[in-house]
Amino acid sequence: MRRISTCFLPPIKLEPDGGSPVYLQLADWFRHAIVEGRLRPGQRMPSTRTLARELSLSRMPIQSAYEQLHTEGYFETFHGAGTCVAKAIPDDSLRPGPTPTWSARPAASKHKGPRRISRRAAVLRKQSPTWLMNLGAFRVGLPALEDFPVASWARLMKRHLRRPPGDSMAYGYSMGYLPFREAIAEYLGVARGVRCDASQILVTSGSQEGLTLCAQVLLDSGDRVWMEEPGYPGAHQSLTAVGARLVPVPVDEEGLNVGEGIRRSPTARAAYVTPSHQFPLGVTLSAPRRMSLLNWAVRRGAWIIEDDNDSEYRFGVPPIASLQGLDSDSRVVYVGTFSKLMFPAMRLGYLVLPKDLVAPFGEVRTAGDAFSSTLYQLVMNDFIREGHLARHIRKMRGLYRERRATLVETIHRYLGDRLEVVGDEAGLQLTALLPPGVRDLELTRRATRRGISVRPLSACYQRAPDRGGVILGYGNVATDAIREGVLKLRATLQELGCL
Amino acid sequence: MRRISTCFLPPIKLEPDGGSPVYLQLADWFRHAIVEGRLRPGQRMPSTRTLARELSLSRMPIQSAYEQLHTEGYFETFHGAGTCVAKAIPDDSLRPGPTPTWSARPAASKHKGPRRISRRAAVLRKQSPTWLMNLGAFRVGLPALEDFPVASWARLMKRHLRRPPGDSMAYGYSMGYLPFREAIAEYLGVARGVRCDASQILVTSGSQEGLTLCAQVLLDSGDRVWMEEPGYPGAHQSLTAVGARLVPVPVDEEGLNVGEGIRRSPTARAAYVTPSHQFPLGVTLSAPRRMSLLNWAVRRGAWIIEDDNDSEYRFGVPPIASLQGLDSDSRVVYVGTFSKLMFPAMRLGYLVLPKDLVAPFGEVRTAGDAFSSTLYQLVMNDFIREGHLARHIRKMRGLYRERRATLVETIHRYLGDRLEVVGDEAGLQLTALLPPGVRDLELTRRATRRGISVRPLSACYQRAPDRGGVILGYGNVATDAIREGVLKLRATLQELGCL
Repeated sequence: MRRISTCFLPPIKLEPDGGSPVYLQLADWFRHAIVEGRLRPGQRMPSTRTLARELSLSRMPIQSAYEQLHTEGYFETFHGAGTCVAKAIPDDSLRPGPTPTWSARPAASKHKGPRRISRRAAVLRKQSPTWLMNLGAFRVGLPALEDFPVASWARLMKRHLRRPPGDSMAYGYSMGYLPFREAIAEYLGVARGVRCDASQILVTSGSQEGLTLCAQVLLDSGDRVWMEEPGYPGAHQSLTAVGARLVPVPVDEEGLNVGEGIRRSPTARAAYVTPSHQFPLGVTLSAPRRMSLLNWAVRRGAWIIEDDNDSEYRFGVPPIASLQGLDSDSRVVYVGTFSKLMFPAMRLGYLVLPKDLVAPFGEVRTAGDAFSSTLYQLVMNDFIREGHLARHIRKMRGLYRERRATLVETIHRYLGDRLEVVGDEAGLQLTALLPPGVRDLELTRRATRRGISVRPLSACYQRAPDRGGVILGYGNVATDAIREGVLKLRATLQELGCL
Repeated sequence: MRRISTCFLPPIKLEPDGGSPVYLQLADWFRHAIVEGRLRPGQRMPSTRTLARELSLSRMPIQSAYEQLHTEGYFETFHGAGTCVAKAIPDDSLRPGPTPTWSARPAASKHKGPRRISRRAAVLRKQSPTWLMNLGAFRVGLPALEDFPVASWARLMKRHLRRPPGDSMAYGYSMGYLPFREAIAEYLGVARGVRCDASQILVTSGSQEGLTLCAQVLLDSGDRVWMEEPGYPGAHQSLTAVGARLVPVPVDEEGLNVGEGIRRSPTARAAYVTPSHQFPLGVTLSAPRRMSLLNWAVRRGAWIIEDDNDSEYRFGVPPIASLQGLDSDSRVVYVGTFSKLMFPAMRLGYLVLPKDLVAPFGEVRTAGDAFSSTLYQLVMNDFIREGHLARHIRKMRGLYRERRATLVETIHRYLGDRLEVVGDEAGLQLTALLPPGVRDLELTRRATRRGISVRPLSACYQRAPDRGGVILGYGNVATDAIREGVLKLRATLQELGCL
């Protein structure tokens, strides 16, 4: 770990009139800061000249204090680095904990049992997934990072870095950078059949923030929301965080069972759907279901949250236009992201809003985290307008088609009929159902130990499912790693005695 | 506006068995998309070869469809751009609105009166400020953008753009990039007297997100929170968005009046404070008040939200260590940002959390917007470790001291004793009280028309104050612009008849 090379001014408080001489007060301050661990061994100290200037003192008392600390062994001088905190601190004076400066009640500092946090935070604690941090084969939601056109991207970045600073460094608009919003609207009109203009686009820091904003603007605590069962756990989190009550609505081969939703909760405030490519089962919401869903929403004044995060990637099946494009009553809020088309660490997504919701979404966004980083919006705008995005998508469509085919074939070869692959040919992941009785959470934990990252299907359910499964991402897994990953999955299944 | 140069694949759905020939279905699809405005005049269309490949069709029907559309005037061919949507669309077929594809109830589409949104969103709508978007002199919170070391920053950015992709493009950790968190912890220990290690740092997308996370994790709807009166409007927003009830606690020359807070609401769940440099009055919380505040929090099990966003900049007054550094009971959540030290559009800030709150904050952050953009964390890490930040702060401290002195002097010269400047010599803005009876909202509106951006003091109050004022930012205002701005302010005051 590199040390920080230039030093910050410490917050030294001197009392010029009262008590001891200034040089002793200074020496005391440094000694305490070192002993309490706020200044660390090897850390550079300001020069006496700098400190004198900053504290508006003459250099004399500072030189005296520094000499004193050198003598006591707290400071050392290194060639080229000036005065530093000594690497070996004299005597055993380093105390581990903080030093209370007044009488705090010792009992209160022990924190017996957890301290009170909000109900919202307590609910989310229960859902915390542990398998997300594994980066091995089959990580869900990851696009092909190796195949990203880094050179073009870097070139566009450099173009904006060269420009003089100005508006692009100041506070941005909570809705996003307008030319970028125009580019998004144009792209969505062509590629996704979304009907909107730039004024309806809100640039987010990814689809998770988009979902959170939907929950915050559309739902009050206690409101019921139809949730696909199984469905996307990130949506569970955003919706329950505002206190919404999720109504599980089963998904079948036509997608969300709208009739069943109406039976279970006719007056729900909203429905969450992934109509183009259902997560995690991969099916498409059928045309009749789309119409009954929209009709229900119009009749009941409900909102529809359309999450459409990877439907650019469809292989051998016709492209599906968005549900939003069919909505003539402005009931749909469309949630999109560039995480799958570009790369997740960029943190750019968007919402397409009904016109009357633009103002309230903008205000909730302002209160929440103000606006999204400007530079990426400028660069992504160029990336779309100069044709890089369309080219990249086209190239990736071929790659993912190939990877998917390889994965399906490999599962077939090595796992025979023990795993049942479900869903249309689309997206960046597939779901494979396990033989009845095999617990997918246990399988996931063991697979993680073998270095592969699969997600348990049961984590997408609110009620325990009849049959477990694994969700396998193939976006970022090269062809030869697919075989290796499937063999590890087979070994895990053998370990569980079900092969 | 540049057009998007490479085209996206449109979501064309063909019915191979049913109905009309494929070429007619294709032509129909394009015609409708153009008429409904989803495809726009001048927009590039895929080549017949590309479309054939993507739709898995032979080129024949596609060529026939394109010819048909050319004949009808919907398509045109431009040299070098291939087939495009015609710039002048034939007949008056462009319809403004969407075309319902099934029977939507016309009455429902009219949206008579506002549609129902959440209470949270409705509350925020009332607070929406209009003066924030003006970028003239005295914009509050803006640092000296012209003096930012763009070259060093760009060099560090390029270093990371050159590196091969990998973890830095994938999903990041909700707490932030660890080496960056270590750098923040070290910086805070030295410069702000904060006691923490890297595990307690949560990287946010700016202090507004930090405040929002505090509100979400620490407070339930209906909980009472002490709020400085006057105080930071961004904090009002974050706290009221979770339904907290703000208890206004007056600020005097010693900062938040803790005794008054205890009288007004002894059992509040939390207190919001800006102890190092109160926003907007600029005072410092006195040592006795700091101790009574911490003692109250320990006694009552309350949380303290310490917002410390510009206290690096203190001129001629001794540096003040953070309240967090005095807290021996882990009651303080410290909110920081790089917006004032670097530039706001970067969107990086941080929280310093008590150890037992690390997990719940991490989970609420994951559910909210997952994590902060990785590249800036990598670059900011280098910027701190290689000494650029310390150098920049030192340089800016001199610049802001000068700008502040110029502003105070200019106000004195041109506005005599009509404006009373309050607060310590610190930060990036000052507050000037208006003569009794002058309405600061009206003044602000008129000043905006003259091209200066001042913020009304009354917007920082929950209850109407006795005396109005204006908050003037000087961080991004060059010396000669200060005089010009003050003259505009004088003209506005003359217009209001109070000079």
